[in-house]
Amino acid sequence: MGLGSAVLNRDARSASRLLSLIEDGDPRATAELKELYSHTGKSYLIGITGPPGSGKSTLADQLIAHYRSQGLRIGMLAIDPSSPFSGGAVLGDRIRMQRHATDSDVFIRSMANRNWPGGLSQAAGEAVRVLEAYGCDPVIVETVGVGQSEIEVARLAYTTILVCTPATGDKIQALKAGVIEIADIIVMNKADLPDAEHASKSIEMIIGMKPPSSWRVPVVSSVARDGKGIDKVIDAIEAHRRVMESTGTLTRKKLETAKSQLREIIWRKLCETARARLPGDSELEQYAEQLMRGSGDPYSLAEEVVRKLG
Amino acid sequence: MGLGSAVLNRDARSASRLLSLIEDGDPRATAELKELYSHTGKSYLIGITGPPGSGKSTLADQLIAHYRSQGLRIGMLAIDPSSPFSGGAVLGDRIRMQRHATDSDVFIRSMANRNWPGGLSQAAGEAVRVLEAYGCDPVIVETVGVGQSEIEVARLAYTTILVCTPATGDKIQALKAGVIEIADIIVMNKADLPDAEHASKSIEMIIGMKPPSSWRVPVVSSVARDGKGIDKVIDAIEAHRRVMESTGTLTRKKLETAKSQLREIIWRKLCETARARLPGDSELEQYAEQLMRGSGDPYSLAEEVVRKLG
Repeated sequence: MGLGSAVLNRDARSASRLLSLIEDGDPRATAELKELYSHTGKSYLIGITGPPGSGKSTLADQLIAHYRSQGLRIGMLAIDPSSPFSGGAVLGDRIRMQRHATDSDVFIRSMANRNWPGGLSQAAGEAVRVLEAYGCDPVIVETVGVGQSEIEVARLAYTTILVCTPATGDKIQALKAGVIEIADIIVMNKADLPDAEHASKSIEMIIGMKPPSSWRVPVVSSVARDGKGIDKVIDAIEAHRRVMESTGTLTRKKLETAKSQLREIIWRKLCETARARLPGDSELEQYAEQLMRGSGDPYSLAEEVVRKLG
Repeated sequence: MGLGSAVLNRDARSASRLLSLIEDGDPRATAELKELYSHTGKSYLIGITGPPGSGKSTLADQLIAHYRSQGLRIGMLAIDPSSPFSGGAVLGDRIRMQRHATDSDVFIRSMANRNWPGGLSQAAGEAVRVLEAYGCDPVIVETVGVGQSEIEVARLAYTTILVCTPATGDKIQALKAGVIEIADIIVMNKADLPDAEHASKSIEMIIGMKPPSSWRVPVVSSVARDGKGIDKVIDAIEAHRRVMESTGTLTRKKLETAKSQLREIIWRKLCETARARLPGDSELEQYAEQLMRGSGDPYSLAEEVVRKLG
């Protein structure tokens, strides 16, 4: 039995193995993903992002505990785009989540940046499919940091939570441009710290400047460490989900994700074809010698070579 | 008159303008570079690399002063691969070099990382061509830091100088793998600091482990700030240049550079062609809808699409 079928049969080791193939950019993953695909696309995807130290993992941990209490099987991907090594920055998070470690219905996996051929969002998108096929619903995607890669990964999620703390304070203005754009819910965590109320108000002001739409981004206060405010976060997720479903935004979002994944896969295939057409080393050497003799320039020569390739 | 011709006529503003086009990845640069190409490839390229704070710019400044005293026209590119903004980290260097600022025979330019279509080394290679066409010989390429991009840029140079200080000390072991490989001359700068001799000896020991070749990498002590040891650095550059020329290594190096530049240009053209073949948005939308209806998977669909493209 292939890995794909084994994942559909809820075999944890096969899921782990397939995720490793994806993480390594191994082409053997494709055949397995083909097999899974029709069994995916139905789980709800929750994104958690925010600056380091804001308490994303603690919040994720609380959400997992909540969904487990409802008897759901939960998947979680922790993605660190800045680290080329797996298990480094996120190892701490995994340790913190030890209370779920022996629970076979909680599948937690960290992925680090490995120069994937299709980019981080492609690899993350494929990893989500595996967790869906393994029967996880919801799937939580946590990204470390607030850079461009994180924003791309967050786009995969249907409901994206931005976790801030009062300490994020003045940096909020800087966050505004990219991250607040993608947030559906903002959690002001560590709300027991001084200035929490002021910080929440600042964020609400920024949100107030957004054009009105069917969803008004709520700012929810929490102290994730103590489980305070988690119920309000859950309520906000459910409310956002209902709006996404009733307005057709969810369907639209899934369509957009499918489109961009398809574009990425086609692009990768076209690149492979292009790479195969590159002249070999000895042919290049002849051209280079021609240039060194003072005949022509590399731009015109390249045009000629590509024209000959047809 | 085009920019290319104006650069060949030694018009500084045109050289500056063409470098900006290259820095911006503007396709209009290509026609100008075609025009320049046959007038380039003759200047001697000196690379300076090393950790931040080692005194690279001060050394470059002294080398410029030396070559100016010989009546040569000098070009210098300061490249900061880590910064997406121009003029930031290297602004200080340019200020330090103010003594050359009003000298029309010294052309200093900083370039920062801008996601160039052909990569950093491609853009740096093109910028070097412009300085050559402008009549600069030698051209100094200074890179900030010691990462992979710096190593690629350093490969452009015929003689690469690695600048260390006694403070680099224990990090030398870490530098060993990549940077010492590409160094033709090692300058132990700030040699008036304690432990300078010990640090030089450590580096000599590492160099001693390299297989013997026609060039034995010297470790030269300097206090660039006071102009001490600069004559020995110049001597080492000249000695290395003579070996490069007499053994044919220089010709080989130029051929390798031409090959890799040509490969890069052809690859870029093939990618452009591939990009033009990507299905349009409405076609992708139809495919995505097909996937959403549960028919097929994106991998098989992509294969089909690419096959149809022929």
